[in-house]
Amino acid sequence: MSLTNASPEAAASSAKTASFTLATLPASARNAALETIHAALSEAKDDILAANAKDLEAARKAAADGSLSQALVSRLDLGKKGKWEDMLKGILDVKGLEDPNLKGSHVFTVHEYSHRIVVGQVQMRSQLADGLTMERVSCPIGVLLIIFEARPEVIANIASLAIKSGNSAILKGGKESTESFVAISKVISAALEKTEVPNGAIQLVTTRDAISQLLDQDRYIDLVIPRGGNELVRYIKGATKIPVLGHADGICSIYLTASADKEKAITGVVDSKTSYPAACNSVETLLVQDTALKNVLPGIALALSGKGVSLRCDPASKAALGPLSLPNIQDAVPEDYDTEHLSLTLSVKTVPSIDEAISHINAHGSHHTDAIFTSDKAEAERFMNEVDSAGVYWNASTRLADGMRYGFGTEVGISTNKIHSRGPVGLEGLTIYKYKIRGDYQPTTGYGEGEGKIPWTHARLPL
Amino acid sequence: MSLTNASPEAAASSAKTASFTLATLPASARNAALETIHAALSEAKDDILAANAKDLEAARKAAADGSLSQALVSRLDLGKKGKWEDMLKGILDVKGLEDPNLKGSHVFTVHEYSHRIVVGQVQMRSQLADGLTMERVSCPIGVLLIIFEARPEVIANIASLAIKSGNSAILKGGKESTESFVAISKVISAALEKTEVPNGAIQLVTTRDAISQLLDQDRYIDLVIPRGGNELVRYIKGATKIPVLGHADGICSIYLTASADKEKAITGVVDSKTSYPAACNSVETLLVQDTALKNVLPGIALALSGKGVSLRCDPASKAALGPLSLPNIQDAVPEDYDTEHLSLTLSVKTVPSIDEAISHINAHGSHHTDAIFTSDKAEAERFMNEVDSAGVYWNASTRLADGMRYGFGTEVGISTNKIHSRGPVGLEGLTIYKYKIRGDYQPTTGYGEGEGKIPWTHARLPL
Repeated sequence: MSLTNASPEAAASSAKTASFTLATLPASARNAALETIHAALSEAKDDILAANAKDLEAARKAAADGSLSQALVSRLDLGKKGKWEDMLKGILDVKGLEDPNLKGSHVFTVHEYSHRIVVGQVQMRSQLADGLTMERVSCPIGVLLIIFEARPEVIANIASLAIKSGNSAILKGGKESTESFVAISKVISAALEKTEVPNGAIQLVTTRDAISQLLDQDRYIDLVIPRGGNELVRYIKGATKIPVLGHADGICSIYLTASADKEKAITGVVDSKTSYPAACNSVETLLVQDTALKNVLPGIALALSGKGVSLRCDPASKAALGPLSLPNIQDAVPEDYDTEHLSLTLSVKTVPSIDEAISHINAHGSHHTDAIFTSDKAEAERFMNEVDSAGVYWNASTRLADGMRYGFGTEVGISTNKIHSRGPVGLEGLTIYKYKIRGDYQPTTGYGEGEGKIPWTHARLPL
Repeated sequence: MSLTNASPEAAASSAKTASFTLATLPASARNAALETIHAALSEAKDDILAANAKDLEAARKAAADGSLSQALVSRLDLGKKGKWEDMLKGILDVKGLEDPNLKGSHVFTVHEYSHRIVVGQVQMRSQLADGLTMERVSCPIGVLLIIFEARPEVIANIASLAIKSGNSAILKGGKESTESFVAISKVISAALEKTEVPNGAIQLVTTRDAISQLLDQDRYIDLVIPRGGNELVRYIKGATKIPVLGHADGICSIYLTASADKEKAITGVVDSKTSYPAACNSVETLLVQDTALKNVLPGIALALSGKGVSLRCDPASKAALGPLSLPNIQDAVPEDYDTEHLSLTLSVKTVPSIDEAISHINAHGSHHTDAIFTSDKAEAERFMNEVDSAGVYWNASTRLADGMRYGFGTEVGISTNKIHSRGPVGLEGLTIYKYKIRGDYQPTTGYGEGEGKIPWTHARLPL
């Protein structure tokens, strides 16, 4: 690992060269490196927390004069209860995601793949023709660029994920966490010196304003993963030719029908809205079937109100809730339905049918996670088939959209991309594959249909 | 299908809306549409060839005054022996790629997936917790933008692939094939009117200079597939935020070692270079182990020379070939090793070791397809592991890099991307997946480790 003041181009080039070596290290070497990092960080706790305290002090001053938010100060704090321990545990969790056991002829299902790291895994094997065999083998993507905001623990998390999956990584953090970043980096850097992971595989860029130059390195960098707010993500998507994995917004909706279970639906909406309002998978818009306005909506509105949620209502839903005389009822404006509130605010809109609900979600949502609350199975299946989102749920909280909850063990982020990896991205999302062909110098012109040609066999061989 | 003079934004928006319906059509409806297109084109052969004759006449005039290449004129000609029949057969071939049979509990292997269209295929199924199940289901990507140059038969090919995979497609062709494009489009458009494929699912844009505006429609378009030369591909990659699937260059190399079979290696290099020199999978650089210069290279050079191939040699290889007094030996300049000749020219470079060969390929190649010719298995495996290309071959012709030859039935293109789909891309590359969760309104806050929490089960369920 290098803590570098080198140019972004030099950092990217060096990460690329290192990636070729890293990609060929056995799982045992990659796991050993994670153990070494874990031990080194454990030992250096006091030094790192002292550095973190400097960041915190500066941030508190900035917060006092109003130039920084209190939320950011809180995210910076590595000394907060459980945070340090979680960071260390995360490294071992990543190590624990084992490479698959390659012996024997066990056929892995796709499900099994998604739960394992697939570097070096033969995904298919076939005979193209006599004496000509082909394998598809998984491999790392190459070089990842991770751009993150305040949270200093992300450094250890991302370095672990990159090493485990055999990818080089370039990390660029926010300026508020510089002292912590440097301290953690030095420890990881010294630790990696003792391992087989090549120097340059993990690059930490501290140069100010390096982001735009890093985004130009499409020759060396294969994937950008932004970890931050939607302004950061939008900026990055517009500024680079490199593929970007992530999501800008999380405008999630619930379509509440008249047949939804009245009591349970309260639990579902309250959990979706209030269990972590600042998360991307929290619900932002409640679409209410017109026939549900009188019987189903009021109980939900009452419960939400009790949790301090403000409702931005269209005229029909406002009228339906009138008799309750709730505080925090406001008139919705059109922009509300395109807004990720990230707070205890919920947009409410009345729709006459499932068609309108689906159209609204496909047009105004962010293709992240959307749910239908109904007792009608056919209606639910239609909703799940027609809503174009990474997650489509029937009677389930939108807050389930999370790699840990999906059982992926860890999560690189949540993707609303339409290619490669969609929804919570596990380590599988950091791999691609290559085709290996083994032959005997056969000329391709000899194969095909017709007289004198050798036929292709294209037969599947056991894995 | 619409043959549209609408604005690029309107075309893209309409394709997006249609994609939601198309994505939910059953395979039978998509297949029926392909049959209808096939029948309509068969019937309209005379009209279409008459329109094609107008394009050809204009192109021949342009070729006569030097403003168009003869090769382009040839590619325009739909009346050329076998071309019309191949175009029609291609539609039925695409139809023949069946959707998987979903009944029973058969576990599909990844290999099987890649040979089938996977729209609506359950790829994994698991229990997240009691009463909370998750499925990963394949689905179309959404809207494809295909930009192609002269070949008019691409319209029928791409329309078939899009319909079969459940994606909307916007097609933008080159101006030289306008008459053919309009004629084929009208027939396909009228045919689709009789099918369940929604109007708007296939958009044909004839507006001049619409490409840059189409490339701005990242709100509606999910993937761009350029079918043309590397100038087109490079321009597109630089001009859009939409992911681009394809390859700009095909600088493929063969590393020839001293242990290669002398006779068979001749066949392998000659096939790789001469069987279709203008193809992206033809070899452009021959890296020669220094100890192979005297014994292995001469026979190959002689055979290549007999086929009219010019060699651009470095001093060591030139010296080794001196005694043969071959014509067509030139001094290589550094740029030769970064050049896709696309003709009967081959760059030759001497390297002292496999390390140098691998480094050269990773630095100068285009990560498309590279081969090693050796009798040493360990050396071959190392080459295949360390060369960062979509195809890595041992004693096999680079010309094997092709969807038909790989057994994928058809090919959308060859990708040198590091995410989503790499190498020859079959219909699998036009799909992504979504996660469906079915629950009973459980609050997410109730799950986890610790007292009073419900544990996640994350158990695999049968497919």
